[in-house]
Amino acid sequence: MSRRSRVRHGFLLFVLPWAASAGAAERPRAREAGIEIGILKPGPLNAITDVAGVRIGHVTLVEGTSTRTGVTAILPHGDNLYQDKVPAGFAVGNGYGKFMGSTQIRELGEIESPILLTNTLSVPEAAAAAIEWTLDRAGNEKVRSVNAVVGETNDGGLNDIRARRVTKAHGLAAIAAAREGEVAEGSVGAGTGTIAFGWKGGIGTSSRRLPANLGGFTTGVLVQTNYGGVLSVDGAPVGKALGRFFLKDALSSKSGDGSVIVVIATDAPVSDRNLERLARRAFLALGRTGSPMTNGSGDYAVAFSTAASVRRTPARRNAPSGVEDLPNELISPLFEAVVEATEEAVLNSMFAAATMEANGIRVEALPIDEVVRLHRQGRPR
Amino acid sequence: MSRRSRVRHGFLLFVLPWAASAGAAERPRAREAGIEIGILKPGPLNAITDVAGVRIGHVTLVEGTSTRTGVTAILPHGDNLYQDKVPAGFAVGNGYGKFMGSTQIRELGEIESPILLTNTLSVPEAAAAAIEWTLDRAGNEKVRSVNAVVGETNDGGLNDIRARRVTKAHGLAAIAAAREGEVAEGSVGAGTGTIAFGWKGGIGTSSRRLPANLGGFTTGVLVQTNYGGVLSVDGAPVGKALGRFFLKDALSSKSGDGSVIVVIATDAPVSDRNLERLARRAFLALGRTGSPMTNGSGDYAVAFSTAASVRRTPARRNAPSGVEDLPNELISPLFEAVVEATEEAVLNSMFAAATMEANGIRVEALPIDEVVRLHRQGRPR
Amino acid sequence: MSRRSRVRHGFLLFVLPWAASAGAAERPRAREAGIEIGILKPGPLNAITDVAGVRIGHVTLVEGTSTRTGVTAILPHGDNLYQDKVPAGFAVGNGYGKFMGSTQIRELGEIESPILLTNTLSVPEAAAAAIEWTLDRAGNEKVRSVNAVVGETNDGGLNDIRARRVTKAHGLAAIAAAREGEVAEGSVGAGTGTIAFGWKGGIGTSSRRLPANLGGFTTGVLVQTNYGGVLSVDGAPVGKALGRFFLKDALSSKSGDGSVIVVIATDAPVSDRNLERLARRAFLALGRTGSPMTNGSGDYAVAFSTAASVRRTPARRNAPSGVEDLPNELISPLFEAVVEATEEAVLNSMFAAATMEANGIRVEALPIDEVVRLHRQGRPR
Amino acid sequence: MSRRSRVRHGFLLFVLPWAASAGAAERPRAREAGIEIGILKPGPLNAITDVAGVRIGHVTLVEGTSTRTGVTAILPHGDNLYQDKVPAGFAVGNGYGKFMGSTQIRELGEIESPILLTNTLSVPEAAAAAIEWTLDRAGNEKVRSVNAVVGETNDGGLNDIRARRVTKAHGLAAIAAAREGEVAEGSVGAGTGTIAFGWKGGIGTSSRRLPANLGGFTTGVLVQTNYGGVLSVDGAPVGKALGRFFLKDALSSKSGDGSVIVVIATDAPVSDRNLERLARRAFLALGRTGSPMTNGSGDYAVAFSTAASVRRTPARRNAPSGVEDLPNELISPLFEAVVEATEEAVLNSMFAAATMEANGIRVEALPIDEVVRLHRQGRPR
Repeated sequence: MSRRSRVRHGFLLFVLPWAASAGAAERPRAREAGIEIGILKPGPLNAITDVAGVRIGHVTLVEGTSTRTGVTAILPHGDNLYQDKVPAGFAVGNGYGKFMGSTQIRELGEIESPILLTNTLSVPEAAAAAIEWTLDRAGNEKVRSVNAVVGETNDGGLNDIRARRVTKAHGLAAIAAAREGEVAEGSVGAGTGTIAFGWKGGIGTSSRRLPANLGGFTTGVLVQTNYGGVLSVDGAPVGKALGRFFLKDALSSKSGDGSVIVVIATDAPVSDRNLERLARRAFLALGRTGSPMTNGSGDYAVAFSTAASVRRTPARRNAPSGVEDLPNELISPLFEAVVEATEEAVLNSMFAAATMEANGIRVEALPIDEVVRLHRQGRPR
Repeated sequence: MSRRSRVRHGFLLFVLPWAASAGAAERPRAREAGIEIGILKPGPLNAITDVAGVRIGHVTLVEGTSTRTGVTAILPHGDNLYQDKVPAGFAVGNGYGKFMGSTQIRELGEIESPILLTNTLSVPEAAAAAIEWTLDRAGNEKVRSVNAVVGETNDGGLNDIRARRVTKAHGLAAIAAAREGEVAEGSVGAGTGTIAFGWKGGIGTSSRRLPANLGGFTTGVLVQTNYGGVLSVDGAPVGKALGRFFLKDALSSKSGDGSVIVVIATDAPVSDRNLERLARRAFLALGRTGSPMTNGSGDYAVAFSTAASVRRTPARRNAPSGVEDLPNELISPLFEAVVEATEEAVLNSMFAAATMEANGIRVEALPIDEVVRLHRQGRPR
Repeated sequence: MSRRSRVRHGFLLFVLPWAASAGAAERPRAREAGIEIGILKPGPLNAITDVAGVRIGHVTLVEGTSTRTGVTAILPHGDNLYQDKVPAGFAVGNGYGKFMGSTQIRELGEIESPILLTNTLSVPEAAAAAIEWTLDRAGNEKVRSVNAVVGETNDGGLNDIRARRVTKAHGLAAIAAAREGEVAEGSVGAGTGTIAFGWKGGIGTSSRRLPANLGGFTTGVLVQTNYGGVLSVDGAPVGKALGRFFLKDALSSKSGDGSVIVVIATDAPVSDRNLERLARRAFLALGRTGSPMTNGSGDYAVAFSTAASVRRTPARRNAPSGVEDLPNELISPLFEAVVEATEEAVLNSMFAAATMEANGIRVEALPIDEVVRLHRQGRPR
Repeated sequence: MSRRSRVRHGFLLFVLPWAASAGAAERPRAREAGIEIGILKPGPLNAITDVAGVRIGHVTLVEGTSTRTGVTAILPHGDNLYQDKVPAGFAVGNGYGKFMGSTQIRELGEIESPILLTNTLSVPEAAAAAIEWTLDRAGNEKVRSVNAVVGETNDGGLNDIRARRVTKAHGLAAIAAAREGEVAEGSVGAGTGTIAFGWKGGIGTSSRRLPANLGGFTTGVLVQTNYGGVLSVDGAPVGKALGRFFLKDALSSKSGDGSVIVVIATDAPVSDRNLERLARRAFLALGRTGSPMTNGSGDYAVAFSTAASVRRTPARRNAPSGVEDLPNELISPLFEAVVEATEEAVLNSMFAAATMEANGIRVEALPIDEVVRLHRQGRPR
């Protein structure tokens, strides 16, 4: 299946012919290049949308020489999100970021709106979109409180971030564009202008499906990568071997800074407490890719369950009711699924992203051939 | 000193002749009515601005019959807040709220922007104001990341909150209006349309100055009150005696819900960890006023130090440097100061706020005479 | 019902004729003295044991002139606690304390052992008792991990705490003594040598039963009081009026230091997240009694649910299962219940405790007549 | 330098001729086998004791066929730890454990006692040792409160943990044995009976020294490994290649469970908040070794600074004073140091540990030759 079809459902604005997603069409995903992370198997799309009902939408802003940014929307399901809330958990790896909505997720253990990702200085506009979209849904006429959930990373290298070109309309368009099915990766949506480990970063996704004897649940991850460290690809020392790594040229190189947002969906009937535990596992995967979570990085994870048996419907708000619960004792395979899918989603974000030149700088694509070579050869002495 | 002069520095938009702050002119502060909270003495203004350098600005939106909202800005000092950051701490009492900027405060232990308060659905617009104001300061030309700190409460009773009438311009105007000196209280700024314990709430402030043998430090508090429970005024059972209390008419009365934001300033040289501890003390004061922190309440506190000896200047970011530190062992008097000033600030917010009728409802002012009578009489049997 | 009968079920070691609990026999509980906290009604015993199944046991150590300490055991139910775990939440008010077992409560959301309270330096011996008691239960032959939950306060004034006279045997005896029914208060068990607000503290308990339209649930609290501040009794300014308060004689007086442990039981089917929220409400009550949570205080709360519909049985550990859940939207009355019962339990701990002289100091009993007088008279001017 | 000399300073009880540490004498450390983790250089000993002043002591209990356990003591410096406290931070990866002392570390940001590691059911005895040792130091005659810091992992496979054979005397002996200089690794002290990734685990250590342009600070780590997952050695897929991994034989294999404690020392002048951030980085390293932090694992990290310029001396407790502070902006290299040293310490714990047969089971040593081979060969296709 071509990259082209993956992009089909995205809502692309102002896409120039040479834009990132076009270049990405020729680039394989990590697994297509022979790099298979972990011991569990992906779902059919190897995407967060393998979790039934989850919808993803991108708006990609590529204009002139200095606008390279966007918005990505994640909808936990296709019904009224405010009325039918999903249990959720949230975790902070390193909190140098502007993630919005976290305290209410923690207090109530739920999400009631689309999750939007964008750039650091455009969180307000994305939040305004999530709020207004929610107020405008049929059935929400009396809603007077909306907990917008917005993550961000700083694309201020390739994008003239101070111009704050993302508008509420872009946020609304990303929500409107959200679809089930394949997910565009690389330099799209909120990943349009991001940089990871010194190469072009972006949006990536992956999933894991547990074998039936471990519950058979599907867990998917979507990431917005803009962070760094010393890149390790399934253990291969890519950053070190290719001479592009954090602290190489003293601290001032800052190659480690940035941020990463990890969104986790599962169809397992997991409580909010255990969803928070799932969220915390995302950082283990960041470690595997070579991140020390530098001071300037905003590393956050949010996890939700789509299981109907845990959904917080109007009926469940009126009286005590029965909720399904996967016990602590059976949760570990989901932890493994989160770690594996997060690591692979990070790789996919970089594998998909083509070289980009904008705002006076040039950021090269991850050299896939070199990566594959290093992955195969190990460390001969 | 008249209420009138207190309002002088505020930036008032669209104030109709009968607006709240006008009515407030005749109402005494709690202390003027003989209600003196605690064992410590206030500073000269009995306001957060007793902490030197702190600036407060209000924008009050009173339009037609259904716009009763606004913005309140708190500036920790008058210099470039982004370049000269202040150490800060943050605490959640009950997290059903949209407080923005909390994770970065916790991670880095600092604030780098004005703190803005507004209504629940206008957080994005206030955040946009804080971001753009920061980007526009001289010296910030290269800034590409701003952690906007925005608190809110839900004024959706007296205010048509779904109309989202607060704009970025209002946020900028509140910042521009910020001044040292007296602070307008009651139905002004972000407190314009709020309700507390079933009566009119609003903005309130108070301060405490420690005696010299305890350090002589000044600590001030500003609150935005929109919460409830069973009102207790310096221990007097006002809510119960006057028959207006949480759970009186079953849970559906919801008289306890709402939110409250507490902003704490001190000139003591306190570390970020100890500032977080100061912030946590604010909730003790909420307990004293009769709050059980209901499910629907967003109760947050943020604390910062204005001491030059702890300020995070560009010089201090380049190398290890000496920072002054008030040790744990000497911190308890500041805890007492926070509790007392928060309790009195809550009372001041209600004492100052006149009866308001808007958006189809009428919310009465706290009946000060009755409160004073109950305070004096105790519980005769 | 006499105080005498309340003590009947306790397991008393070495009780001299003049021991605290004897003196307490003549002292009324707060409610018997006309002080009724809040708006909700207590259960029949006005004790944590109004929550069906909860068992309390005390071991009181009064020996010679300098041993005044003990152990108090709280058993959530009478079955195998390790096999049938209870969901639980935990909260820190001020963490200058040695509370043991907290991280596992938070991670797994459950308690699997008796909760023991003792003095600061005897936590290891109490923990050893909880562990060995658990290992020794029928059905636990293969258990190799036990999360002992132990709280403490520092009775190092009236008790020669450095002598560490509490042994594992005392811990086991407290567990063995645990009974349903009335609960001995004052200078018993872990409260034998404690001091509160400058007067004799100890163990106290209280409960609240919600009306049927709010769910009808029963919530009970037991406290070990050893903290301070400026005592307020249902709003009456007792500490200030009687000239015994924190900071009166400068910080060195330290009258505020100490600690308090709050144990909360409810029969409502509440999730671990909401149990943590219940636990956090305990500190509001501490605020109401006049505490600023001083630096040297270890203020902790733990809450559990006894509802069979949420109990974590072996069957529930093997597969996803249905668990009952009281939704967020209906939780606020339980918050009010916790605040009220905690405040009243604190008062009961002091009302019950007689004057004690030991270890070279004398600590007076709370002067109940004076307290009642101040409560009635208010603040006449 | 021989393994023998490394053991010299340890305090070994009951060591049979075939005991673990003897067998370990022939086994290289990871770096000696050609596996060099990361981009930074170790200190001269490649041990936590490269941080000047830090002392380590082991007591190893090997008796009969079923006692394989012990105690490891970490002393931040050689002076009175209670009087000269060190700033500290604490972090939870997965909290299924009995780590003691955490809430006070977090509240006050400091450690005042030795840190002891032992087995899960012996935490009380280790804590009793830390308390009594502290009470007995000259200068501590008036001390009435000690925050014992005790970590543990569950050695209940090779050790008959239910027998609780560790005593207070063993804890005191471990403290007494603490020395600067080389550190014994593998099956010694608290690592005597532990298992990691299905092979023999134990105690391991490593360090990193920053280049002068990044501050020149030394950071050291000591780990007690008893956890699992899918072992990755510097990226080499050892667990998968050798067919020994988590979830291989369904969840019931539980090969992932266990625990790991990470103790971090640095001579950099770091605040308690930034020490907590250092502690959080340890889990990234666990991710790199292949851990998903399974449900049953107690994964904790504690970090302290030995810098005199941040030490909390009696003088600093009496008045505000100057404290040195390495700013946020310069902290990232320390994060990298923690991640690298933790990963290498884990490997060292396994490289040093010989095959052990006890308590009815046999746990094989990590097959170093196979590991080295897999590390060199990569993933040829």
